[in-house]
Amino acid sequence: MSFRTIKLVLEYDGTCFSGWQIQPRKNTVQQVAQDILQRVTQENIKVVGASRTDTGVHALGQVAHFRTRSKISVEKLFIALNGLLPPQISVKAVEEADADFHAIRSAKFKTYRYVIRNAKTGSALQRLRMWHVRDSLDLPAMRRAARALVGRHDFSAFRGAKSDTKTSTRRLLRVSIRKADDNIVIEIVGDGFLKYMVRNIVGTLVDVGKGRISPVAFREIVRSRDRKKAGMTAPAFGLYLVEVGYL
Amino acid sequence: MSFRTIKLVLEYDGTCFSGWQIQPRKNTVQQVAQDILQRVTQENIKVVGASRTDTGVHALGQVAHFRTRSKISVEKLFIALNGLLPPQISVKAVEEADADFHAIRSAKFKTYRYVIRNAKTGSALQRLRMWHVRDSLDLPAMRRAARALVGRHDFSAFRGAKSDTKTSTRRLLRVSIRKADDNIVIEIVGDGFLKYMVRNIVGTLVDVGKGRISPVAFREIVRSRDRKKAGMTAPAFGLYLVEVGYL
Repeated sequence: MSFRTIKLVLEYDGTCFSGWQIQPRKNTVQQVAQDILQRVTQENIKVVGASRTDTGVHALGQVAHFRTRSKISVEKLFIALNGLLPPQISVKAVEEADADFHAIRSAKFKTYRYVIRNAKTGSALQRLRMWHVRDSLDLPAMRRAARALVGRHDFSAFRGAKSDTKTSTRRLLRVSIRKADDNIVIEIVGDGFLKYMVRNIVGTLVDVGKGRISPVAFREIVRSRDRKKAGMTAPAFGLYLVEVGYL
Repeated sequence: MSFRTIKLVLEYDGTCFSGWQIQPRKNTVQQVAQDILQRVTQENIKVVGASRTDTGVHALGQVAHFRTRSKISVEKLFIALNGLLPPQISVKAVEEADADFHAIRSAKFKTYRYVIRNAKTGSALQRLRMWHVRDSLDLPAMRRAARALVGRHDFSAFRGAKSDTKTSTRRLLRVSIRKADDNIVIEIVGDGFLKYMVRNIVGTLVDVGKGRISPVAFREIVRSRDRKKAGMTAPAFGLYLVEVGYL
């Protein structure tokens, strides 16, 4: 096989794009990356991203792959891509991958981070990087509730209306909630995620933090598989795709 | 005296404004803040800011004062201002000050921070918050050079062309340079600063970091009082007014 498979690690500012996936007449990361790769390789490139991040969602470590006959070195590709891509996208790594490497199918886990600013006032400088929640949140209660998420569950209660996957069972490996100055940082590691799942989980955990939902009631919501029981969808600009793991 | 003096602490995103100071047909922080204060108090308010931050420069702790006959409580003012100001400005504190408090004249020191991203690639998410310098910088050399800045000096070598102050002698109390992941953070505390002074110092320290200027030559530049000998002006979007101290 004369094709090479190249793996990319990308950072992007979600507020500048209508998400990852190509859509007609929309500015998407996949479209921009694909256009630049076609210019560099002079081939009809198709870029596959590990996660279809939604409009407004950021990436610190989105992984993508493409196949090419081009002989350009990964070092040159790294420089060319960072030179040609708009500053809203940066390429953190370009690597030669196994021929059958596939950004989606080879992925073993993904890590998402959600950042909440929990203070009386918003932050002018970080306003497009985190969700501002005024009411003081009860962290221990949120942590107790979050334990119900770890493991293999049907996450229908946190599934977005437009989700189109066959099964809604996913396995979460870790949910951590930590305080960093005025911020609350929620990190979730799982083998897969439904559309809006992280943002629906965060919205519901914030209700727990506000005392509107008890940790016990949160556990019931997880078990109910009923989207109507869960809380609001947290805004996109607080969410980051941090890492895609391939082991 | 029936006037009250109110002290404000402000955070703002410098990329959204043509600096602090009111100028005709420009979007400035002073103008926006003054307009909102006039709406709230129904008086002809004049807001005085401790530092005339330039276009693009951020503030984490700009201090401003105004005098008013209004009886509105500082708590209500805090809520009203944060509700009415655009999200690019946040009010961190509203305090009752001594009648003769003056944001500029009462200031004893100011702290500025400059953030450099020192990595092969830029950061998509932080691109408007730090200066991206590709070449690896020699931190110990920069620190040795920076020692020449501390103390009382004529800073003409780092004075902007448009600077209009009578004397260019200022006292720097501390210059610290630390590494935080891919970033180099330079903090400078001084009793006053000339126009572009911090950005000219940073631009020249980066030349030291690149090995273009030795720490000894840097000391000569400080002594020369000759702007032509110093390096480039570092971009505005890496600079933050962190604190104004009143002791």
